Amino acid sequence: MNVTITTFKWVPGFAQGYVRDLRPRWACEEIGRPYEERLIDGDPKPDDYFSEQPWGQVPVLDDDGVHLFESGAILLHLAEKDERLMPRDAQGRASTLSWLFAAFNSIEPWMFELATVDIFATGEEWAKLRRPSLLQTIGNRLDRLADALGENDFLAGRFTVADIAMATVLREAGDTDLVSSRPALSAYLDRCLSRAGFQKAHADQLATFARNAPEPVS
Amino acid sequence: MNVTITTFKWVPGFAQGYVRDLRPRWACEEIGRPYEERLIDGDPKPDDYFSEQPWGQVPVLDDDGVHLFESGAILLHLAEKDERLMPRDAQGRASTLSWLFAAFNSIEPWMFELATVDIFATGEEWAKLRRPSLLQTIGNRLDRLADALGENDFLAGRFTVADIAMATVLREAGDTDLVSSRPALSAYLDRCLSRAGFQKAHADQLATFARNAPEPVS
Repeated sequence: MNVTITTFKWVPGFAQGYVRDLRPRWACEEIGRPYEERLIDGDPKPDDYFSEQPWGQVPVLDDDGVHLFESGAILLHLAEKDERLMPRDAQGRASTLSWLFAAFNSIEPWMFELATVDIFATGEEWAKLRRPSLLQTIGNRLDRLADALGENDFLAGRFTVADIAMATVLREAGDTDLVSSRPALSAYLDRCLSRAGFQKAHADQLATFARNAPEPVS
Repeated sequence: MNVTITTFKWVPGFAQGYVRDLRPRWACEEIGRPYEERLIDGDPKPDDYFSEQPWGQVPVLDDDGVHLFESGAILLHLAEKDERLMPRDAQGRASTLSWLFAAFNSIEPWMFELATVDIFATGEEWAKLRRPSLLQTIGNRLDRLADALGENDFLAGRFTVADIAMATVLREAGDTDLVSSRPALSAYLDRCLSRAGFQKAHADQLATFARNAPEPVS
């Protein structure tokens, strides 16, 4: 049962610690599943890589010859084999699926737009004009997320793969106060990120990029 | 085995035919699974509805007492019980999951931004300035999607729940030429939407809204 996670050999500093191979790495750590890294060039990407991942992104997963792309699909695939990430009772499974998709379709899309505004289009007039209403929209979403979490430690009651998804999405709020200004969400995020599985996954991603850093141009 | 799909009693014209209860309706039609509608007010929403759906959106699903929200989770839940929507072989399942998440996390987020620009923020200066680069970004995504589809009729080789997701996402391109200018994608979308299951689901959604249209103010 060999798991291989494909990711980039190296990425620029602002992306280190955030590349989405972090998600399957974390899932594997939670269930003690060893994996191998397969490292590809990020810029330019190998031409034939687009046949593995339609948009040339990472991660992709190979699990004993079965191929998956999209970090959500990969998380679900890994979780389904282990009750520690996916409850086996019908409502526990249903809640985990609901929150897994909520992370990817109800929160992360707005984080993508925030990344466009704050990173990729920074300095552009439209980005400056858009930013306040976008922060307001994300804030409203996060208020409701905090309401739904309530007094629970984790989204589906106990830690599941949905928390791997949501915590990595919430981290994308970056230097804004979107999470830090909401104590319940901030505590939730700390609770997720203080897990040994995240810490190991994060350190391993950084170590890979450090090992493969390009030679400084002198 | 009673399935109940919750949706709004009525929505304004521009949203009719696009409300996301269309997705589980379509899935139910494909597998011949009867369902009941539960209709709620859309504006304002019942206060206690937020405990069922964190953002007050539709659909939610009740399947014999098991509760789900997020149309992606609901689609997956319905599909898992029927091979017509979810292949049982390992790679077929993996491909279906990959494309299901691709629809929700790699294409729809950009359609959300398009809806903001073209509908909710129409007339705003930033929306006008943003629109060209957004169309370019979506176009690039769709070019790669067309490449990945290649000569296949459907994303995972044969029709699966991923096509319900992707076709409903592509419909969100609305009046733009994003899909219509790409013959392979346009043919793919037609292939999906011409299915009896979509036609019935779409007609049933429209019929519900027609039945519950508010009295005209005279």
